[in-house]
Amino acid sequence: MISWVGFDADDTLWHSEHHFMASHDLFCEIVRPFLDGADDPDAVARAHLAETEIANIPPFGYGLKGATLSMIETAMRVSDHRIDASQIQRLIDRAKEMAVHPVDLFDGVDDVLDALGGLRLALITKGDLLDQRRKIDESELATRFDAVEIIHEKNVATYGEVFRRHGIEPSRFVMIGNSIRSDVLPVLELGGWAILVPFADTWAHEQADPPLGHPRFIEVTALRDVVDAIARITHTGGRVD
Amino acid sequence: MISWVGFDADDTLWHSEHHFMASHDLFCEIVRPFLDGADDPDAVARAHLAETEIANIPPFGYGLKGATLSMIETAMRVSDHRIDASQIQRLIDRAKEMAVHPVDLFDGVDDVLDALGGLRLALITKGDLLDQRRKIDESELATRFDAVEIIHEKNVATYGEVFRRHGIEPSRFVMIGNSIRSDVLPVLELGGWAILVPFADTWAHEQADPPLGHPRFIEVTALRDVVDAIARITHTGGRVD
Repeated sequence: MISWVGFDADDTLWHSEHHFMASHDLFCEIVRPFLDGADDPDAVARAHLAETEIANIPPFGYGLKGATLSMIETAMRVSDHRIDASQIQRLIDRAKEMAVHPVDLFDGVDDVLDALGGLRLALITKGDLLDQRRKIDESELATRFDAVEIIHEKNVATYGEVFRRHGIEPSRFVMIGNSIRSDVLPVLELGGWAILVPFADTWAHEQADPPLGHPRFIEVTALRDVVDAIARITHTGGRVD
Repeated sequence: MISWVGFDADDTLWHSEHHFMASHDLFCEIVRPFLDGADDPDAVARAHLAETEIANIPPFGYGLKGATLSMIETAMRVSDHRIDASQIQRLIDRAKEMAVHPVDLFDGVDDVLDALGGLRLALITKGDLLDQRRKIDESELATRFDAVEIIHEKNVATYGEVFRRHGIEPSRFVMIGNSIRSDVLPVLELGGWAILVPFADTWAHEQADPPLGHPRFIEVTALRDVVDAIARITHTGGRVD
């Protein structure tokens, strides 16, 4: 039944968001002096930042460089351009740290890839091209996958292109990931299957209502559970209850 | 003889560098007040910027987001952190302009692609994933190519990966581009052919000594000339004098 399994990477195979959260903590520290009238300055700072990040997806896309430009821009706006340039340098220095952070695999990644060895495996991720490539190389997982796709956005068009490129029949494809918006909804729309492995710290922009009751959607609690979930899809001939 | 033709995109199929040069002009304007002791403040500013850009390739790679972070960082360094934050905002606004600049194809692109219609064509480019994808889409050239590859770096390893992915025999591949460093040298090293179409404004980092006398290297003066150059490779069975 299932012949191809797609894996998201950030916060599915390895930790990512907590590195961004550490950058956001630095951002809050930097802009806090300009928000001392607020009840909860950090909450105000984060709300401003989230607004900039969403507005900057069309020009800058995803990844650490766009996130850094958004933090710089928000720091300037929140401070009414009174922020000292040396504080901006701290955000750039932080981006350089992120560009070399160690790749920290989730528990069970190797076991899951071993257990799915009879199927074709694709790694499908988005973000900065260089940063994603660096993490794939450092993870030493590339040879485990039959296809590695770094795409600028995960939507119906880009998944469709990946399917065409590799001759993937959507009804025989299942995507594993932590983002309802990026890993689940577009794949279901194309006729594929999706298994959500929720991660507590998933970026708010990736959140959406889970498609509960959808016949090709499964939610599991940990990455290890996807092996059983894929077996269930196959054994029931595609019906999962 | 030749079965695959690879095309670089920025400054080979469409204009790119002059957009970066306009950003650099803005950068010079912004930092000029901090360099008024210099004989040629703009030359000093550009030299500082070039240094930052090269240093920032490992963390940030290529493209407009990394270029913008480098301009911000250099403006802070040149001004000894005295620059006003509102000037930094101008650099970010400029990046947003670059993210939507119209795609301006070079003369003859359509004719050349038509003339090479019997061969398999690949577009091989580097830079920001989103920005490159946007330009490919706006150029409406994607359907002319059998393969579109956006890679984080153009070197022996990444060209080798492209060759493997598409089953390309290097000795039957010719790369067309304006960068000796990115489009010529790694392809020659892998056993492929390379045709340089020099472009006056090529970024200094992409410059290198042309491999004059190399048996699989050809330099032409305009994109239109590549059709004849490829015909010569084929008609002479691979010997070009």
